[in-house]
Amino acid sequence: MTDKFIKSKAAIAWGPNQPLVVEEVDVMLPRKGEVLVKVIASGVCHTDAFTLSGEDPEGLFPVILGHEGGGIVEQVGEGVTSVSVGDHVIPLYTAECGVCKFCTSGKTNLCSAVRETQGRGVMPDGTSRFYKDGQPIFHYMGCSTFSEYTVLPEISLAKVNKEAPLEEVCLLGCGVTTGMGAVLNTAKVEKGDNVAIFGLGGIGLSAIIGAKMAGANKIIGIDINESKFELAKQLGATDCINPKNFDKPIQDVIVEMTDGGVEYSFECIGNVDVMRSALECCHKGWGESVIVGVAGAGQEISTRPFQLVTGRVWRGTAFGGVKGRSQLPAIVEQYLAGEFKLSDFITHTMPLEEINKSFDLMHSGESIRSVIHFDHK
Amino acid sequence: MTDKFIKSKAAIAWGPNQPLVVEEVDVMLPRKGEVLVKVIASGVCHTDAFTLSGEDPEGLFPVILGHEGGGIVEQVGEGVTSVSVGDHVIPLYTAECGVCKFCTSGKTNLCSAVRETQGRGVMPDGTSRFYKDGQPIFHYMGCSTFSEYTVLPEISLAKVNKEAPLEEVCLLGCGVTTGMGAVLNTAKVEKGDNVAIFGLGGIGLSAIIGAKMAGANKIIGIDINESKFELAKQLGATDCINPKNFDKPIQDVIVEMTDGGVEYSFECIGNVDVMRSALECCHKGWGESVIVGVAGAGQEISTRPFQLVTGRVWRGTAFGGVKGRSQLPAIVEQYLAGEFKLSDFITHTMPLEEINKSFDLMHSGESIRSVIHFDHK
Repeated sequence: MTDKFIKSKAAIAWGPNQPLVVEEVDVMLPRKGEVLVKVIASGVCHTDAFTLSGEDPEGLFPVILGHEGGGIVEQVGEGVTSVSVGDHVIPLYTAECGVCKFCTSGKTNLCSAVRETQGRGVMPDGTSRFYKDGQPIFHYMGCSTFSEYTVLPEISLAKVNKEAPLEEVCLLGCGVTTGMGAVLNTAKVEKGDNVAIFGLGGIGLSAIIGAKMAGANKIIGIDINESKFELAKQLGATDCINPKNFDKPIQDVIVEMTDGGVEYSFECIGNVDVMRSALECCHKGWGESVIVGVAGAGQEISTRPFQLVTGRVWRGTAFGGVKGRSQLPAIVEQYLAGEFKLSDFITHTMPLEEINKSFDLMHSGESIRSVIHFDHK
Repeated sequence: MTDKFIKSKAAIAWGPNQPLVVEEVDVMLPRKGEVLVKVIASGVCHTDAFTLSGEDPEGLFPVILGHEGGGIVEQVGEGVTSVSVGDHVIPLYTAECGVCKFCTSGKTNLCSAVRETQGRGVMPDGTSRFYKDGQPIFHYMGCSTFSEYTVLPEISLAKVNKEAPLEEVCLLGCGVTTGMGAVLNTAKVEKGDNVAIFGLGGIGLSAIIGAKMAGANKIIGIDINESKFELAKQLGATDCINPKNFDKPIQDVIVEMTDGGVEYSFECIGNVDVMRSALECCHKGWGESVIVGVAGAGQEISTRPFQLVTGRVWRGTAFGGVKGRSQLPAIVEQYLAGEFKLSDFITHTMPLEEINKSFDLMHSGESIRSVIHFDHK
């Protein structure tokens, strides 16, 4: 801990299922290949809540959560060439090194470069950049955007157009890109396809936007919280249904609504039973189901193999299949061109000091997204 | 039962788990849209044995089994235009009507035209063409090739080159097309891909041939019966492994052998636990597993959804995704051109009277395929 450091306000998760504590931490300045980012805004995502709950088997504490941010480059470490001080950036929990087997495959966005250390809550050199009274605090998903200042590897930053308001495009750091990307990038929904979207949170609603952009025919939203239906319809859902209102499995209802099933379905919850419904509502012969939600530790999906032998396909997606550094900037441009809106998602904004409220709003189903505004002095 | 009929020797399955009884049946002459076929040869497939065992929930008795045949058109019913007397044909358990939603989708070979009646063991008009002493006998998979004469809908016959020996190309009516098609048609294996094939029976060996034709790099055959390895290697397997020789899950062994997993895997057994191994030996980010085998009633596949979220794909195939009438004739031409051999599969031939022996040879693992030769006088 002989590095130089700056002081930063951060929300620390000291242990599972405890409220975050906003306090001052020391943030070490960036080392070789690293970048210090001044975080302007950060969305609060279900994945943050999942880890905070203690159910995430890979959860580490104490940790600074947050992975859906937008910020400005404050300082660059040795050898950093792709971003400069003042650049606007979106932190990436899925890096893009451009040289690993995965990046060069042309088949996936799952770069392996920093995966192992990121999973251990540290930087690629195996150490943390966050300290509280000399005690290291873990990084989270390589981002830790619930801190005024954070440090990331250069390969974990997407440089985006400065005209885009970071208080909105921060949502492209996770939820919105994940949902839209699942539809447009992973499934490649085509004009006229019927689509079912399970779970109408931020990701599900983003999937609806994606389906609408693709020109889907029926866009069926499914949720047990009917208060989500109005916004879902506003964004493009043609039908919204609550499984609790039917006395048969929801997949049977959807198969009837669509003359045999949907071309594509998306599970945006993380519930393994819903994942089965999502597969089984697909059309025989060609329907594909995409798992977007993250299930709890040890949980398993299951179905009869006949479902697959008769032509259905089961796949998944992470970050919407989007390569962050090479593809996210173009998605920001689409946003700037008015192809989709982000403001619809932001139901609440608040300063970091009120971050625990954002988790309450999420758990009560009142919010789509809360965005933390840092308002640096 | 006022139709005209002819006498035919047939192997009748009177009930589950009983030896077939070869006796004379009455075969009604073909009605509108139907064709009477003189069966020249028929392979004996695991699916016949599965239904005979009584484990097939859709199994009906008494029935004339057999679905992997080759024959000659003996007589056509009213309105039949696509085949004529003397044409060589391969019966199709997956019809191709050309006009249903499935046939016109361009996405699947699962024609729906005669599916419902075929599943009930009858012709499209709801009646059987087989009788024994006035009692109707069920059709099987729309084919019933364990009879000297059988009747099929016109849309369930692929007309093939007369130069092809029916005693060999009958295998294209099921197993060989299924295995090769799974690789070339469903998975679309490309040059340099690594491939794992679980189960080295007729379908698995055919998958090896397909993988070799595609130019795959490693072709790993997996079976607990090591007597299959020699032929597998002869056909193109680069490695053959027995899961019983390892003290860790076979998927872990394969992942190590292939620096991260295979591009494609194929389950050619019908064992749901093996289906899981087949998925989990696929490469993160892009590996795809194809279920070819048919599992027992009520059995389910399962895995952690993380397997899919990290880029693996789970799909299935029936009849190798091949459209029988439009694509099978070209596969017969490939065979005639020497692109693959069928004789390697045929370990035993016998007259219909000895058909029960073919099931014994299958169960003991001694045969790849037994082919029944009818040798009509």
